[in-house]
Amino acid sequence: MYFVNPNVKSLYRTSYQESRKDYIRLDMNENPEGLPLSFFNKVMSGISPELLSMYPEKMDLINKISESVNFKSDNIVLTNGSDDAIRLVFEVFGEPGKKVISVSPTFEMYSVYTKMYGLSYCPIEYDQDFKLDIKTLIDSIDEKTSIVILLNPNSPIGEPWKEDDIRKIIKRASENGALVVIDEAYHFFYDITFVTMVSEYQNVIVFRTFSKLLSIAGLRIGYAVSNSEIAHVLSNASSTYPVNAIALRFAEELMEHPNIIEELKMTEQEGRRFLLSKLRENQYDHYYNSGNYILVKSKKDPKVIFEELKKRGILIKTYSHPILSEWIRITTGSIYTLDRFWNEFKNVDTTSTDC
Amino acid sequence: MYFVNPNVKSLYRTSYQESRKDYIRLDMNENPEGLPLSFFNKVMSGISPELLSMYPEKMDLINKISESVNFKSDNIVLTNGSDDAIRLVFEVFGEPGKKVISVSPTFEMYSVYTKMYGLSYCPIEYDQDFKLDIKTLIDSIDEKTSIVILLNPNSPIGEPWKEDDIRKIIKRASENGALVVIDEAYHFFYDITFVTMVSEYQNVIVFRTFSKLLSIAGLRIGYAVSNSEIAHVLSNASSTYPVNAIALRFAEELMEHPNIIEELKMTEQEGRRFLLSKLRENQYDHYYNSGNYILVKSKKDPKVIFEELKKRGILIKTYSHPILSEWIRITTGSIYTLDRFWNEFKNVDTTSTDC
Repeated sequence: MYFVNPNVKSLYRTSYQESRKDYIRLDMNENPEGLPLSFFNKVMSGISPELLSMYPEKMDLINKISESVNFKSDNIVLTNGSDDAIRLVFEVFGEPGKKVISVSPTFEMYSVYTKMYGLSYCPIEYDQDFKLDIKTLIDSIDEKTSIVILLNPNSPIGEPWKEDDIRKIIKRASENGALVVIDEAYHFFYDITFVTMVSEYQNVIVFRTFSKLLSIAGLRIGYAVSNSEIAHVLSNASSTYPVNAIALRFAEELMEHPNIIEELKMTEQEGRRFLLSKLRENQYDHYYNSGNYILVKSKKDPKVIFEELKKRGILIKTYSHPILSEWIRITTGSIYTLDRFWNEFKNVDTTSTDC
Repeated sequence: MYFVNPNVKSLYRTSYQESRKDYIRLDMNENPEGLPLSFFNKVMSGISPELLSMYPEKMDLINKISESVNFKSDNIVLTNGSDDAIRLVFEVFGEPGKKVISVSPTFEMYSVYTKMYGLSYCPIEYDQDFKLDIKTLIDSIDEKTSIVILLNPNSPIGEPWKEDDIRKIIKRASENGALVVIDEAYHFFYDITFVTMVSEYQNVIVFRTFSKLLSIAGLRIGYAVSNSEIAHVLSNASSTYPVNAIALRFAEELMEHPNIIEELKMTEQEGRRFLLSKLRENQYDHYYNSGNYILVKSKKDPKVIFEELKKRGILIKTYSHPILSEWIRITTGSIYTLDRFWNEFKNVDTTSTDC
C-alpha cells in the first residue's frame, strides 16, 4: 500500500458545495456587489485571448505593489489568495512538533494548516466580553513556538491591535526563534497597518488580500510582504505561476486607480453607518471592530435567523463557538444591500408570534 | 533564528522575469494565439463584477469533467494548473527519503517538487536516438520507490507510451507500494488516454490541463483523476479555492463546446503539417512525437538561432541536456504563426556567410 502523509490523512476539511450565486451574500466578508461596473468593463475590455493563452507574468504587479507598500520588489511574494500565503508559510517555516499561537475565534484555515504541517494549534481564547488577555498571549510564546498568527483586526472579534502590544509580541517571538504573521485581510477597512514592522524586525510576515475591499475574491490573489530572505524562501516553495493573468490585470488596475479604492471604501462606510444606525435605533446589542462585518445579538436563535433569511435569499454567518452562539455576523456592503437585509431581518427577528 | 524547511532552503529555482508579451511564443507549448475570438467574447460577456467578487464555486465544472471522463465527481480534483497537482501529489504521497522514478529529459518541475518534498529524483535517460530502455525503467521500480512519473506523451522526446508497457509499470509500482502519475498535458494532441487505468488499478493518478490545446494557460486550471480515496486525500491537502472563477467559466464553456476543441485541434494540425512539410522539403532532421511541438536540428548552434529569432520577435526553446544540445523545439500553432516562424528561421539558419 502506498504512503499517505499522516497529517493530511487525518485532517478534517469542511466543504460547502451549495451554490451561493443567487443569494445576497453577507456571510463571508466579500463585497456583496463587486467592483464598479465602468471600472470592471474597462479592465475586461483590455483582456484578449492571447493574454489567456500565455503563462501569467507577475512583475508589473509586483512593481506596483512594491511602490504602494514602499518595499523593494524582492520583499513581495504574490499568492493564490491569502490561503496560499498561509500554506506557504506553514510549509516553509512551520517546525513540525512545535506550536502555533493564535487567538480564538479567528480565521479557521490557520488551525487547518497547523495540523496539515504537523504543528500544534494553541489559541488564546477571547472571553465572554470579547476581551483578550494580551499578557497571557505574550507569555504563551516560548521556545516551543514556531509561528504566531495575528489578524489585524481579528475576525470576527477583538479590539484592533495596539502597536505597543504588537511590538512586545514580535520581540518575544524573536527571542524564541518564532515568526509572526500579521494577516491584514481587513487592512483597507481599518487603515492602520503594521507593514513597516517588516523592516524593523527580522521575523515578521504581513499578508494582504484582494478578496475583501478590493472585491475580487473570485480571482484569487493576495501577497505577502517580508524581508528579502523570508520572501526568497517563500518564492522557492511557491508554484511557478500561482496567480492567474486576469487577477494580475485587475490588481494592476486597482493599484493604479486609488479613486476606485476610495469609492469602494465610501460605499462600505455608508452601508455600515446605515446598518449601525438601524441597530442602535432598534436597541440591538451589536459589535463592530473595524472590519467589514458587524456582529448582532439577535432576539431569536441565530440558527433560526439563518434559515429564515436564507429562505428570503440572504446568507449570514452563525457560530458554534460558545461565546458567539447568540450572535450573527453580517458582512457590510452598500446601503442598497444592507437595506434589503434590514427589511428582511426586522421581519424575521421578532419576538411576537402568530399563536 | 527561526526554522526553515531544509528541503526548501536548499532548492534552486529558476525565474524568468523578462516579458514574453510582444513575442511570437513558440517556447512553452502554449497556443501562440489563443481561443477563437467569438467564443472568447461570448464567455467574457457572461462575466460580471459579482462573479469576481464571490469565492469561486467549482461543482458545475467538476460535474462536467466527471461526465466527460466518465468518472464520478469524487474522482476529480481541480488544481491551480498541473503544477498545483504535482505539488499536491508530492506533498500527500511523496514518502521522504524514497525515490521518484521518471525519464530524462522531461518536464522540469517534477525534479523540483521531488527535492522540495525530500525525495530522490532518479530518471531513466533517453539515449542519443531518443529511445528509452523500458526494461531498465521497470526494473528500477523497487521497494524504495514512492512515485513513478510518466508524461503521455513525454515532452520533448519519447515514443508515445504503449498500453502494455504502461500496465507493466503500474503493476510493478503497485507491488512495491508506489503510485504512478500519468501526466496527460498533451492528451488532446495525442488522443490516446490512459485515464481508464484509474478504475483498473488502485495506484494511478492522471493529470490533465487546460493550458495546452485548451489555450488558457494564463487562467491556471487543471485537474487530477484518481480513485475516490486518493482524490479525497488530495482534496484534503488542497487550498479551499485553488481555481479562480474565470478559469472555471472558461473551462465549463470549453467542456460544453466540443466544436471549439475540434477547431483548436484542426488549427494546430494544419500548422503542424505545414511546418513538417517545410522541414522535409528543406531536408531538416526533425522529430515529432504527437505533442504540439517539433524538434529541429538546426544548421547553426541552437543558441545562435535562439538569439537571432528573438531579435526578430520569436521565442523558441533550446536545451542544455547533452542529447538535445543540437536541437531547437518549436511549439506548433496555426499556419499563419508557423509561416511567420518559417520565413524568419530559413533566413537565420543558413550556412552561407557574407564574408
